[in-house]
Amino acid sequence: MRQGATLTYENAGVSLDAADALVERIGPMVRRTYGPRVLAAHGAFAGAFRLDYDERLFKQNYREPVLISCTDGVGSKVLIAAELGRFDTVGIDLVAMNVNDVLTTGAEPLFFLDYLALHKLDPEIAAQLVQGVAAGCEQANCALLGGETAELPDLYRPGHFDLAGFAVGVVERSRMLNPRHVRAGDEIVGVASSGLHSNGFALARRALLDHARLDLRDPVRSLHTTLGAALLTPTRIYVRPVLNALRSYARRPPVSAMAHITGGGLPGNLPRVLPRNCDALIRRGSWPVPPIFGLLERYGVSEEEMYRVFNMGVGYVLLVRPRSTAVVVRALERAGEAACVIGRVKRGKGRVQIQ
Amino acid sequence: MRQGATLTYENAGVSLDAADALVERIGPMVRRTYGPRVLAAHGAFAGAFRLDYDERLFKQNYREPVLISCTDGVGSKVLIAAELGRFDTVGIDLVAMNVNDVLTTGAEPLFFLDYLALHKLDPEIAAQLVQGVAAGCEQANCALLGGETAELPDLYRPGHFDLAGFAVGVVERSRMLNPRHVRAGDEIVGVASSGLHSNGFALARRALLDHARLDLRDPVRSLHTTLGAALLTPTRIYVRPVLNALRSYARRPPVSAMAHITGGGLPGNLPRVLPRNCDALIRRGSWPVPPIFGLLERYGVSEEEMYRVFNMGVGYVLLVRPRSTAVVVRALERAGEAACVIGRVKRGKGRVQIQ
Repeated sequence: MRQGATLTYENAGVSLDAADALVERIGPMVRRTYGPRVLAAHGAFAGAFRLDYDERLFKQNYREPVLISCTDGVGSKVLIAAELGRFDTVGIDLVAMNVNDVLTTGAEPLFFLDYLALHKLDPEIAAQLVQGVAAGCEQANCALLGGETAELPDLYRPGHFDLAGFAVGVVERSRMLNPRHVRAGDEIVGVASSGLHSNGFALARRALLDHARLDLRDPVRSLHTTLGAALLTPTRIYVRPVLNALRSYARRPPVSAMAHITGGGLPGNLPRVLPRNCDALIRRGSWPVPPIFGLLERYGVSEEEMYRVFNMGVGYVLLVRPRSTAVVVRALERAGEAACVIGRVKRGKGRVQIQ
Repeated sequence: MRQGATLTYENAGVSLDAADALVERIGPMVRRTYGPRVLAAHGAFAGAFRLDYDERLFKQNYREPVLISCTDGVGSKVLIAAELGRFDTVGIDLVAMNVNDVLTTGAEPLFFLDYLALHKLDPEIAAQLVQGVAAGCEQANCALLGGETAELPDLYRPGHFDLAGFAVGVVERSRMLNPRHVRAGDEIVGVASSGLHSNGFALARRALLDHARLDLRDPVRSLHTTLGAALLTPTRIYVRPVLNALRSYARRPPVSAMAHITGGGLPGNLPRVLPRNCDALIRRGSWPVPPIFGLLERYGVSEEEMYRVFNMGVGYVLLVRPRSTAVVVRALERAGEAACVIGRVKRGKGRVQIQ
């Protein structure tokens, strides 16, 4: 590196050596997420993934492949991670926010890419962030096919970073879930969340940190841990349990639609899979609400507002034909999820009623 | 909306109404990028894209489809846009940074997703940003399949925003370009950039704004426009001209590899497509260097450093068998690009020599 009066990229705040150090450090974690379908060469401009593939014992070809894709970030949950200096979990949230969305169509996630932007590239911190992303990809059975680390000293404050992600999945067209299949009488199966997941952190921070002046490092009795640890609990990844439940059916499964409960809560997300002539009737009290929401209510957020913003303990929802509900719930439970019927679909106008 | 002592998402700085206003405003621009392959329903959790499709006159099915994907942002070029209050062009840069990378494998870009994070959601500004993204997608023949707008008042300063993107393309496995095909004797065809594109803005800002104290709104004689307009010139999208040139060959085209010249310039990006036993010999002066680089040199950035950071006027490179160079150059020129031979591949050690 050159010194002196000449302007270089390095003294403009962008460290190419730190970028190299990061690439070296994350290589093994990233490669662990690869399957035989990843063709990407190291250092390539773009990742390459074989859609159809033949192996000796297992051939998988799609007749009418539909690619499913979405993008999301983790919102201001990154600020909790930055404040606590705990960087290895928000990557899991990032993967979860995306693959759970892809999953709602019935698709299997294939690969994931992350965009990490920060004030200054500390290879240790960036490696922890990517480690979380890789851990999430392993949970979701998808390849971490690429990523970008952008050092933007003039955009982010020291210690701050943002994290966005992008998932691609595939589903056979004939097995793709579609809200048109939803019928009055379908039961609504809720799968437990692990807490706030990655939504509503602007409101949670205002209530718990700015107003109540709680400290992230303080233990909170009702949470059985510190406030920071409770807030940072990673978002659950529903890919394996849900795909397992769907795949046990050779033909179209008895699940008519699925919804990922994110910002907007049940009333914001369920209408996305309701036909215009159906309402969703949710029975309050039919599932356990995690204690973090009790804490939020105690510090000034009304229950009504909480239902409008947070998942309230239900992270994922499946609409199921009533004769199959018990089987689907058991399949989810065997895969380690807490699931139960939280309501049902009835004739109506595409609205969600919480009673 | 409720008022008073109760904490709501709205008074925590996140405006759901503004989000709705944005969605309404960008709908028509986004739909203009859709082709018959987009199945996504409005309001779905994820976008859906048919890979194979049948139309009356045109059937396109892949025998061994390889999906190509990458992610990138526009770096601190967003700060120039924010400072000038000119928001409709960086979206084009965002698409370009990604689809040009996807293109290097020989793939056709299929769809794109954008992640926009900002301090406060101003629907007018956000709509202009997405308008740029949609314009880029139209240039690149790809669908704007999804996007996320994240309002993060505690992470971004007022007026600031960040923009990241993700592109997915597909290439028939047998036609995928691979650096293994590069041979000594291949000629290096450079395609003109439109200026800085979206790299090295940290350095450009330091040199031109912090040190030279130039004003973005001032005209600069050598640039024939204002400094801000020159810096904001959108990155060229090479998808149509390059795919046209490749598709005129029924079998494997005479192009052995391609490189998108981004941060790191020619010496940083050409090695990614060079086999270990070849060097790239670049002849300085064989193409015109845009005047913005003369300005950077005048204000303290050495020519050597510029070659290490910027594209220096060459935005995209094709390595071509020498007997076909003239045909490929003509095809690019007919498609409106300025292209010429800027060097050749010779035996060596995977290095780039600029002479």
